[in-house]
Formats: sequence, C-alpha cells, structure tokens
Amino acid sequence: MPIYKAPVRDIMFVLDEVLNLPEVDLPGYSEATPDLLQAILDEAAKFAENELLPINQIGDQQGCTRHADGAVTTPDGFKEAYQKYIEGGWMGIAASKEFGGQGMPRPIGMVMEEITSSANHSWTMYPGLTHGAAAAIKIDGTDAQKQKYLPKMTSGQWTGTMNLTEAHCGTDLGMLRTKAEPQADGTYKVTGTKIFISSGEHDLSENIIHLVLARLPDAPMGTKGISLFIVPKYIIDEKGESGERNGVICGSLEEKMGIHANATCVMNFDGATGYLLGEENKGLNSMFIMMNGARLGTGVQGLSHSEFAYQNAAAYANDRLQGRSLTGPKNADGPADPIIVHPDVRRMLMDCRSFNESARLLTGWASILVDKSLIGESAEIRQGAEDILGLLTPIVKGIFTDMGFENAVKAQQVFGGHGYIKEWGMEQCVRDARIAQIYEGTNGIQALDLVGRKLPANGGRGIQTYFKIVQDLINETKDNDELKAYTDNLQKGLGRLQSASMWLMQNAMANRDNAGSASYAYMHLMGRVVLGHMWLWMGKTCTDTLAAGTSDEDFYKNKLLTGRYFMNFRLPETGTLLKQIEAGSEDMMALAADDF
Amino acid sequence: MPIYKAPVRDIMFVLDEVLNLPEVDLPGYSEATPDLLQAILDEAAKFAENELLPINQIGDQQGCTRHADGAVTTPDGFKEAYQKYIEGGWMGIAASKEFGGQGMPRPIGMVMEEITSSANHSWTMYPGLTHGAAAAIKIDGTDAQKQKYLPKMTSGQWTGTMNLTEAHCGTDLGMLRTKAEPQADGTYKVTGTKIFISSGEHDLSENIIHLVLARLPDAPMGTKGISLFIVPKYIIDEKGESGERNGVICGSLEEKMGIHANATCVMNFDGATGYLLGEENKGLNSMFIMMNGARLGTGVQGLSHSEFAYQNAAAYANDRLQGRSLTGPKNADGPADPIIVHPDVRRMLMDCRSFNESARLLTGWASILVDKSLIGESAEIRQGAEDILGLLTPIVKGIFTDMGFENAVKAQQVFGGHGYIKEWGMEQCVRDARIAQIYEGTNGIQALDLVGRKLPANGGRGIQTYFKIVQDLINETKDNDELKAYTDNLQKGLGRLQSASMWLMQNAMANRDNAGSASYAYMHLMGRVVLGHMWLWMGKTCTDTLAAGTSDEDFYKNKLLTGRYFMNFRLPETGTLLKQIEAGSEDMMALAADDF
Repeated sequence: MPIYKAPVRDIMFVLDEVLNLPEVDLPGYSEATPDLLQAILDEAAKFAENELLPINQIGDQQGCTRHADGAVTTPDGFKEAYQKYIEGGWMGIAASKEFGGQGMPRPIGMVMEEITSSANHSWTMYPGLTHGAAAAIKIDGTDAQKQKYLPKMTSGQWTGTMNLTEAHCGTDLGMLRTKAEPQADGTYKVTGTKIFISSGEHDLSENIIHLVLARLPDAPMGTKGISLFIVPKYIIDEKGESGERNGVICGSLEEKMGIHANATCVMNFDGATGYLLGEENKGLNSMFIMMNGARLGTGVQGLSHSEFAYQNAAAYANDRLQGRSLTGPKNADGPADPIIVHPDVRRMLMDCRSFNESARLLTGWASILVDKSLIGESAEIRQGAEDILGLLTPIVKGIFTDMGFENAVKAQQVFGGHGYIKEWGMEQCVRDARIAQIYEGTNGIQALDLVGRKLPANGGRGIQTYFKIVQDLINETKDNDELKAYTDNLQKGLGRLQSASMWLMQNAMANRDNAGSASYAYMHLMGRVVLGHMWLWMGKTCTDTLAAGTSDEDFYKNKLLTGRYFMNFRLPETGTLLKQIEAGSEDMMALAADDF
Repeated sequence: MPIYKAPVRDIMFVLDEVLNLPEVDLPGYSEATPDLLQAILDEAAKFAENELLPINQIGDQQGCTRHADGAVTTPDGFKEAYQKYIEGGWMGIAASKEFGGQGMPRPIGMVMEEITSSANHSWTMYPGLTHGAAAAIKIDGTDAQKQKYLPKMTSGQWTGTMNLTEAHCGTDLGMLRTKAEPQADGTYKVTGTKIFISSGEHDLSENIIHLVLARLPDAPMGTKGISLFIVPKYIIDEKGESGERNGVICGSLEEKMGIHANATCVMNFDGATGYLLGEENKGLNSMFIMMNGARLGTGVQGLSHSEFAYQNAAAYANDRLQGRSLTGPKNADGPADPIIVHPDVRRMLMDCRSFNESARLLTGWASILVDKSLIGESAEIRQGAEDILGLLTPIVKGIFTDMGFENAVKAQQVFGGHGYIKEWGMEQCVRDARIAQIYEGTNGIQALDLVGRKLPANGGRGIQTYFKIVQDLINETKDNDELKAYTDNLQKGLGRLQSASMWLMQNAMANRDNAGSASYAYMHLMGRVVLGHMWLWMGKTCTDTLAAGTSDEDFYKNKLLTGRYFMNFRLPETGTLLKQIEAGSEDMMALAADDF
C-alpha cells in the first residue's frame, strides 16, 4: 500500500516562516496566524490521509462507469469523501466570504490542492475544476448570475466544468464549431460535441454547472467569434434549486493512460439551454481567467505527484536491503544494506526532494501574487503583481508538471521491478502525473506563452523587474559564506537567463521560428533560476533562524543541505539550455515536412 | 490505429553502406550481400507489419490469462504469429548452423529484434528470452545438453527463460534462497519461488526450458554459492521429446504498468527435476553470459519504441491542423497549418529521429563486436572486441532505454490530449517502454557496471582504446567543412569524457561514493559521445557518397541534417553532465538516511 503524510512542517515553514502570511498586506491575510494555519493543515492532512489516500488505488482499478442514460458512477468511496469535503467547508476555504466562503488567503487554498492531489489526483479534479468555473462567474457574471451559482458552488453543493476542446481543435480554439442560437427569452440553445471534459458527468454533486465555449450565428471567424455560456446540467428553477434536466449528456468516457477515477467525458449538447456569461464574442477572455487559475492548480499537481513519489521512494529505499555500500557495510548485522546507502539512489531522491521544497515556496508566492493582482490595494500593486505572475504561471505549469512526471519516474526507478507492478502504486503515480504535462495547454504551449507573450509584454517590464528581484537577493546574501554555493550558482544561472533573453530579443524578430525553437529550453532555463531563487530565499531564512537560535536545528540544516544539492546539480543545467537556445531554429526546421 | 513500417532503407544504409557487412572478416559475414540483406529485411518487415503490429493493441487490452492449473493463455493471435515466426525460420536466423540455425551475422538477428519489438514488444519477449537461454547452454552445456536442447530452441519448437529474481533479491543475487538438492541419479531437486519471470509460462511453444539460479546444500554464502540449472517444463524423454510434466508451475501473473501481453510469472519450483549447467557454484558466470546478450537486446527495445513513437508522431504532426506557423501560414487554403510547422514539435521529432539513426548504427557495430569477441580469428581480436563491447553494453542498455522512454514520452506529447487516450497507441508505447529501463539490471546498475567494472578493467585499456578510435575519426574528418558541426561538437564532448574519466581516477579511489555519484551522469555523458561518434561515422559515409554521386541525394542530405541537429543540440548536454560528475558525492550523501 502506498503511503502519504501531508508535509505539514514543510508547509508551515513556507507559509509562516518564509512568506510570513499574516504580515502580507492583503485582506484576510492577518487572520492566517501560525495557530490557525497549523489547525487547518492538521485537519487537511487528516482528510487527505484518511479519506482520499485509501480510495486512490481503488479508483484507478475501478474507474468510472457510464450507464445507458449517460449517468456516470464514480468509484467506491468517492461520493462519501466528497460529502465529507463539503461538510468540512473545504470547497470554500479560500473563496470570498461574500458567497459563503471562508475568505482565507489563496496560498492556503493552493496548499489544500497540493495535499489532496498527492493523496488522490483523480478525486481532487472534481472539486478542482469548480474553482476555475466559479472564478469566471465571479469576474464576468451579472449580479444575478453570481447570486444564482456562486453560493452553491462555494459550498460544493454544485460543481463546475470547463468545456473547451472539440475533436478537431484543442490548442487552436478559433476553429471550434459548437453553436449557440439566441432564443426569444434571452437564453441560447447550445448544440455541439465537446471532448476531454474532465469531471463532465458524475454522481458527487447535485448539479453540474458547465461553462461552454460556443459560436453565435454569424459570429466572426476565429478566436474573436467565441462566446462563453453557462449550461447547467439541471436548469435552476425560480427558487434557485436544481430543476428540469437540461439537454446535455455524457456520450461516452475516454479510456486513458491514467486518472481513471476522473470521468473524462465526451459531452453532447443538444439544444441545451445556455446563458451568456460576459460579453458576446469575448468568451475566450473569460476562459483565460479560468485557465490562468487552472494552470497554477495544474502545476501544483506536478508538485503533488513528486511529493507522493518521494515519500514512497524514500521509505522503500530505507527498507529494501540489497547490496552493500561502496564504502563498506552500513548494516553489517543484516544480510545487506538498505539501498539508500547508494549515491545513485540518493540522486533520485534528492532530485525529488530539492524540487518539492522549492516548488512549494513558489506555489505560495505565486498564490500571493494572484491575490495581489486581484485585490491589491492600488492599481500599481495589482499591475506589479500581474507582471510577475504572468511570467511565473507558465513556469509553474510547465516546469512543475515536467519535473513532477520526471520525479515520479525517478521514484518508480528506486523500486526496481517492484515499481513496475501495480501493487506499490508507483506506476499509477507515473500514469496519473503524465496528464498534467498535457492538459490546460500542453507544456509546449506554456513555453510559447512565456516566450511569445509574457516575456515581451510591456517592453519586457516584467522580466526586468524579476531580474532585479533575484539580483537584489543575491546582493543581500552574497557575503554569507554558508550560502556561497547558492549565490555563486544562482548568479551564473541568472546571467544565462539574461543572455538567453538578450538572444531572443536579437534573434526572434528577424526569424520568429527562433522564438519557437528556443521556447522550451528557455522555460526550463528560467524554471531552474526561479527554483534556485526560491532556494536562496529559503536559505536566507534558514541561516537567519540558525543564527538566532532554534530548538529544531536539524530541520534548518537539512534544508540548507537540500538546497545546496539543487544549486550544485540542477542550476548547472542552465549551461546546456543556453547553448540549445543559441543553437537557433535552423537545424530544427531544416528537413522538409514530408521527409519526416 | 498506430502505424509502423520497418525502416528498411535506414537499416540497409547502416548494415551495408556504413558497416559493410560482407567485408567484415568473420565467418558467415561474406554471405550478407546487399541482395540477401534486402530480401531478408523485406520479409522481416512484412512479418512485423502484417502479423505483429495488428495484435499489439489487442494484446495490451486482453493481457494474459492464468488458469487454475497454472496454464497461461496468451492474447488472441499470439500463438498463430509465433507459429509463422518459427515456420519462417526467424528464431534461428543468427544462430549457429551446427544446431540448425541459419548462421547469419548477429547484426541481422539484432535488426530483426528491433523490427519485431517496434511492432510488438510483449510478443517479441517470448522468442527473445530463448536466445539468451540458448546462448548459456551453448557456452556452458555438455555436448549431450547442447544436442538435447539447442536444435529445438533454435527452431523455436521450445522456448527458454531466465529465472533469477526472488521477492527479497533482484540486483543482489547473492541473497537468493532457491535450493537444489542432488539426487542419486545425478539430477537435482529444485525448490523455491522466483518472481518477475518474463514468458515464464505460455501457450506458444511445446516446451519451456527454464534456466534457474539456485543454491546447493552447504554452498558458500553470497554470489559464490550459486549454481545454474536447466529445469524443463516437460522433462525430455529418451527420444528427445517433451515427456513427463516437471514440478514447476506458474503461481500467478503480475499486474503491471505495461507489456500486458507478456506473461510475467511467479514461478513455483516444487522439487522440480533440474540438471546442472556448467560448474557447481559458478552459476552466476553463466548467467552473466545470458545477461550480457540480453542487455544488448534490451537496449534495442529502447530503439524500437523510439522508432515506433517517432513514426506515429511524425505522421500525426503532418496530419493534425492546429494554429499557424510563427512565420506565416504554410497551409493558407486550410483552416490551420499542420503542427509540424512549429519548431517545438520539430524539436521532439528531431530528438527521436537523431537518436534512432545513430542508435541503429551502434546496435550494428556492437553486434559485430559480439561476434568478434566470440568467433574472432585470434585471441587478440577477441580480446580487443571484448574490451570495447564491455564498455558499450551498459551504454546500449542504459542510454537506449532511457532515451527510448524519453522519446516515447515526447512523441506522446506531440499528440496532445490524444496521446493520453488509449486509442492512438502512444500511451501503450510509453508504458511498454518503461520496463526496459528497469529489467535486465536497472539503468543505475548499468551505470555502476560501466564506472565500477568496465572502465577500470585492465588498467583502463578499453576506454583508452575507445578514445583513440574516436580521435582518429575526428582527425580523419576534421578538414571536411560539411562535417564541421560534427567534429567541433564531438571533439568537445570527447574532451569532457576524458576529463570525467580523469576525475574518476583521481576521486573514486579516495572516496568510492564518488564513483557512485558520478556513475549515472558518466553513462549519459559517454552515451552522447558514442552516439555522436556514430553520427560522425555516418556523416563521413554520407559526404563520401554525395561526393561520388548518387541518385538518392535527399536521403544522404537529410541524414547530414539530422546528424547536425544531434551534434548541435545533444552533444552540448555533455557540459552539464561533466559539471554534475565533478560536483562529487558530498551533497548526495549529506543527509542522514532517516532524515529522508
């Protein structure tokens, strides 16, 4: 049986000691005192460990079942766990109090997603997509729409979905064909087929609020002719309750590599009643609001898998006796040493661990930036946060999910043959982790978003600001001998990121394929610098705390050692990445398409 | 439906134009004329494409079924395909004529394994393991044993297996517990349980010849007390035919991530009659003979998956319309451009392609070295081949299977969401490819074998010889302007490999953990240099052919472009790998084991 313990101590370190939530100047943050945080996290840990983890393997084995009428049954225990989740008020933990939420800072909501996704990725997607759908209604909905949908989506009585993809278009939504015909009563009849709809149909919630992209008759071609509609599974009656069944059903479930317990649906809309959300033909804007939030959440799934994988591999490596240490027996009385004595096993564990701890801080920081960009006091604060958040979003989505998958594979490797069989749960982790690199915009699309849109935005203001943030921290810490491996490696990495940015400025205008060929390596280069930046930030906190004296010295010393590994082993990867960027697009584009 | 066409033209280029098989001074090689090669490859292609590919997805869906009596049924069509395989004489294509084989050069046998594994990995493992078992009997068996088993294993009437792993020991075979008690008639009673036995039980062949590692009573502890036994499923009667059922049955089948159509068995030996193969207590030596052959074959599976993945992704990328080229529409009349216009899609395809073509040459070269090491004319030739082959074996196994898996994942990524669903066959490719990094010695073990055993062997004679081979080729080609990207990058890579080797000499003696911490990066550094070496070798052939004039110019020009991509994008990775080696073991080993 796979194990998992929510990393509460590490999360407290990040939220309280590094980010110091109560001191952040945003509404609701001052309430996030260490005591309250600890209490929330302890409860979250219990819920994930006791309710979600035990049904994770069962869910993978059973999958979902679609019945002849289009109804979908989730695996054993999923419904009960969801009931406990909404009873615990978890759905609205970071939602606005206005609609019944608890109004806690967003980092706490994100941490909850990390924990529940570690324990059960498939299950977490049912409430998870609801957050994105609610966000779009909150921003673009009329007051009546907000009152109608948000309280029940905040309590979890209803869930939400995002309906974008069609068989012939995923990335390129401009080609979508689902149509919406205006009716005399101000509603629309929505008709078309959507595919790959996560949580599209299930038995967890009383109603499902679908957000659907569709075209009005005579809408302009391409992305400027797409509108967004609210299409509830059950039409809301005059009392605000779920009423008549709407014309949307699940046509079939996809057979997938993983996340078997999440219902990935083909959704058939057959003249379903829909309500325009936001303005006509501006649906893609609203969808991007949902997607940007969803992209951070998807990134966090990478962290979740890496944490789960790490914990299991570390336990196995301490348990499995096989061979002897190269430097002489470490368990001389036993038949062999535990495999954790082998440096190459350590390498795989340290790759996971040094990613997890830095990714967790980046998640927290990015979440604060989301709140700042939405509810910051001044336009300047909001814009400043938006500048950095725009850059970090593709990094969190692209790098976390790439490393999350790679780390799941590494942890599986620690198990040898036992990692390949189902019993230990590691192969499920690998299969489940894989989707996060693909959905919510493939990681190649994230890289293009970063290089083609976020980097040049406002004349490069965001990246210049970010360079300064990192350089200031290096300057502040560079005389600290204990952080020498940190500042030296990060300075080199930052220099390479600056060189890469310069190369793009000089070469991408002349030949835009140079932006494309550089994009993936650039995202990975920047990802390593950003995680290195997180490590220097944590390193500073650790040396400060150790200097001030603490009863928990080992904790901080181990953090410093883990960060040093990241700096010495992962930051140097920026060297190769820069070379790959500078190699340009010529070799990639040289072959004729039909010679492939 | 996934596609696959055996890459016959590319194989002909490697075997005939680069390696020039008929000119190799080894028995049987002169027969491998271009006409014969072409005829064999055309037939092999037909068999793989028409018989094996169509049952690959079916096999994944159905898996194997174990019945109450321990019998195992393979998926629909597997038995019929096997029958055609042995009727075609494929099992013995590269086997010695003495036992009924066709005596063709080993590279042809390896190419056959590449092709059949691309079309159907699970199926290929049934005949595949037979080759290793037969090799051990051929080297260590008595004449009577050879006469008894080899003709029927060469024809394919009987198959073979390797029984090594037990629940508590895989890598560390010294701990194994299966026992063999000598009987008055010279046979042994073998008792114990083996796990993870590929093709351990099935319905394809009339008999299954298990090779089993076990301990004699009072055998020394550890690896020096292990003997090897032949344990046939049906005991061979006086006429040499399958007779009485032996005391070995399949206790259960493992539930795995992939290769569902191969029966991975728990094998229960209950006083089964066994026959000693080779000398008492020296069974591990014989097992290593099997394993070394098996490791090349396992490496080739990585190439097989990468080739299959590449072909499917290239076809999809040419077919799928989505978005527009960054440099303006390339399919202006269509609703969008095919995604192959995007540099980042090209990157994934070029990574696959540039690996496949160089890995294919390395497979061929290594196979010649195997023949040279076994049947070379002089002891000097045999030893010289063995020196290089020893180094290349962990590279082929470790690098091919790592890159094979990575390329399967990249090709899956080209498909976006469609790569994650079962229909397109890409997720099966990823799941199947994963096992090759684990079995036949995990890739971490390959790296340790390379750094701890092969590199220091005979005072480093092998690696010094290899450095000279590469340097000589660089010297020979460095004035060729068309190969400048090749020679420049390979020279740098070779320099880094030499620096890394020097670092190991200087640091691994003082602290053996430095060998462990460097091992994986060293294997990958050397792997890139070796594949770069293959590209320079092919590049030289191409420029020579183009200079001499050819009617097939595009073929050679595309090869040169593909190689240039590998040189400019993959060789620079040696820079980071050297840094990781030089970072040493300190950071990896710093944490206490129980702090993980």
